[in-house]
Amino acid sequence: MPQLRQDLITGRWVAVATERARRPDSFSQAAKETVAARDVCPFCPGHEAMTPPEVLAYRAPGTAPNTPGWWVRVVPNLYAAFRLEPDGQDHQDGRFWQRDAIGACEVLISSPDHRATTPLLPRRQVEEIVQSYVDRYRQHAHNPALEHVLVLYNHGRPAGASLEHPHSQLYAVSLIPPSFLDELAGARRFHEAHTECVFCRTLEDERRAGARVIFENEAFVVFAPYAARTPFETWIMPRRHSASFGDLEVAKEKPAFAQALQLTLKGLYEGLNDPPFNYYIHSAPLKADVSNLYHWHLELIPKLSTAAGFELGTGIWINVVKPEESAAFLRERIQKEAAQLAGPPADASGASVPGERLRHSL
Amino acid sequence: MPQLRQDLITGRWVAVATERARRPDSFSQAAKETVAARDVCPFCPGHEAMTPPEVLAYRAPGTAPNTPGWWVRVVPNLYAAFRLEPDGQDHQDGRFWQRDAIGACEVLISSPDHRATTPLLPRRQVEEIVQSYVDRYRQHAHNPALEHVLVLYNHGRPAGASLEHPHSQLYAVSLIPPSFLDELAGARRFHEAHTECVFCRTLEDERRAGARVIFENEAFVVFAPYAARTPFETWIMPRRHSASFGDLEVAKEKPAFAQALQLTLKGLYEGLNDPPFNYYIHSAPLKADVSNLYHWHLELIPKLSTAAGFELGTGIWINVVKPEESAAFLRERIQKEAAQLAGPPADASGASVPGERLRHSL
Repeated sequence: MPQLRQDLITGRWVAVATERARRPDSFSQAAKETVAARDVCPFCPGHEAMTPPEVLAYRAPGTAPNTPGWWVRVVPNLYAAFRLEPDGQDHQDGRFWQRDAIGACEVLISSPDHRATTPLLPRRQVEEIVQSYVDRYRQHAHNPALEHVLVLYNHGRPAGASLEHPHSQLYAVSLIPPSFLDELAGARRFHEAHTECVFCRTLEDERRAGARVIFENEAFVVFAPYAARTPFETWIMPRRHSASFGDLEVAKEKPAFAQALQLTLKGLYEGLNDPPFNYYIHSAPLKADVSNLYHWHLELIPKLSTAAGFELGTGIWINVVKPEESAAFLRERIQKEAAQLAGPPADASGASVPGERLRHSL
Repeated sequence: MPQLRQDLITGRWVAVATERARRPDSFSQAAKETVAARDVCPFCPGHEAMTPPEVLAYRAPGTAPNTPGWWVRVVPNLYAAFRLEPDGQDHQDGRFWQRDAIGACEVLISSPDHRATTPLLPRRQVEEIVQSYVDRYRQHAHNPALEHVLVLYNHGRPAGASLEHPHSQLYAVSLIPPSFLDELAGARRFHEAHTECVFCRTLEDERRAGARVIFENEAFVVFAPYAARTPFETWIMPRRHSASFGDLEVAKEKPAFAQALQLTLKGLYEGLNDPPFNYYIHSAPLKADVSNLYHWHLELIPKLSTAAGFELGTGIWINVVKPEESAAFLRERIQKEAAQLAGPPADASGASVPGERLRHSL
């Protein structure tokens, strides 16, 4: 059973994933280079038996589970750092405290196509990916043993992706992760002072400032946050105040979210020649009573620099590009992309507000 | 002037290092590969004019500053994310808050030898490196504009080292970094409950448990922390309670620290074939009144895995090797190393306590 361990100084929890255990000498730098590339992809159609049985699939009528015919497929992660067990145990030995790592790790396979990353998929397929996020999120949100559900995507080996076939991941865990404690503390401070959601207010402030806004449609705003941690850090935030990703309105917000996500990824893909990145969806902890002060959103962090001793030792990030420049670069890319999709405007006089044009043409 | 920017949600500060500014499209993945390797090392003797003028050097009598003849040389970082200016400005525009990034960034060149990393240097030279840490720490500790001094080392490109010639770095900054806020909060909680330093108590608990202790000498204990974040994460902690690295006792603690540091790095170098790593020295914030509850120490984090979406999104690290296994592996390596240096023991009966034998023979 994988474990959580509590640091004796800070109280920070660390996951010790015994399921992925490797022998210490396997970390030798020479040994690493002899690892052969996999030639059989466990996520490709026809290889369904290489993964644990699927927990969700959108598939053609009449096709059997764990056979081809699916267009989105979700399976438990074979190397799970968290496991759903009925009875989690605590082990305390003096000040050394360890808990079973209760939770779930799942892989959400983007499509049957081994090569098609999100920018290259039909928009309809991106909506299906988002639907799989919502379905699995809601599934775990009902489990009283869990505190939090995180949906994430790792793209490219430098960003931690170990398999090439495009896939998202879901982690459902039995503790409130430290990043949320920081966000919740800030949101609570602001709410106490202003009786207002700090995220709603930030959206308003960013839209008024304008320089960091990359794109917006009827339901989402894409922007570079004021204190972006890395070049091209980008957030996608719903305009409607909503604490939980599980409450995404499928009819209206799903297509708008899929559009905002795909255009953002296309901007990176075209503009920076397919860079590695991580994104994750920050949604309210499941049991915290924060519906008036938290606001779900997606944070995307391209992997273009290395967190080194300074970042590790201080917790301060050094960003070498101003977020206004990152935003201008991506905004231009996305407008170009949108213009190509839309063709030349029928009436040039109607094209004065780029955001409006994008909203109608895509 | 480089800037600090405050995140609107969490209050987290980010350094926007305009001094290192690059054009957005320079991050394109294709462009990156065309960057040529440097063939002239600015840290090698004879190239002193390639760096800003030295702020400290240990050099042969009669040699002039910024010429060869030094064995340790400290220069300001050419690409400084923090700068010492007499008047730091704050700029507040509604909720958007930015401050000048006041501070110092220095490079501490380990030795004239371009190839000799710490494990390969004579012990005496390692002591001189430690002396340069102490001298520069104390220099900045007296500056009333500064809040914190961090000494760090990045080894290998995957760990963020951009120049091959071995060197440490010093960052003196005008804010208390977030990692210290977490440590100080934990230390304060423990001190309130037990009127005792949580680090002293942890040393005691780790020595009693034994399984994670790697090495100890008369003044330092080297161990894998109970909740190690990565394989082979290793801490070096003084046995004497002391909040500030600046109070290192040069006569007794300096040689013991140099020994503990070099043996640890040798263990990694031999055992894992020279892996990339970061280490940094955590010392009390300069003006905080924490002398009874903080305890300086060095944290070493090998770069053997990639922090991906889960780590970024949650702040939880996943460690794939138990710290007890990492410790056993390094302990064995260090004992082998120490035995080679010492030759066969003259009296086998005196070798029953490995720690004791190491202490006497090195």
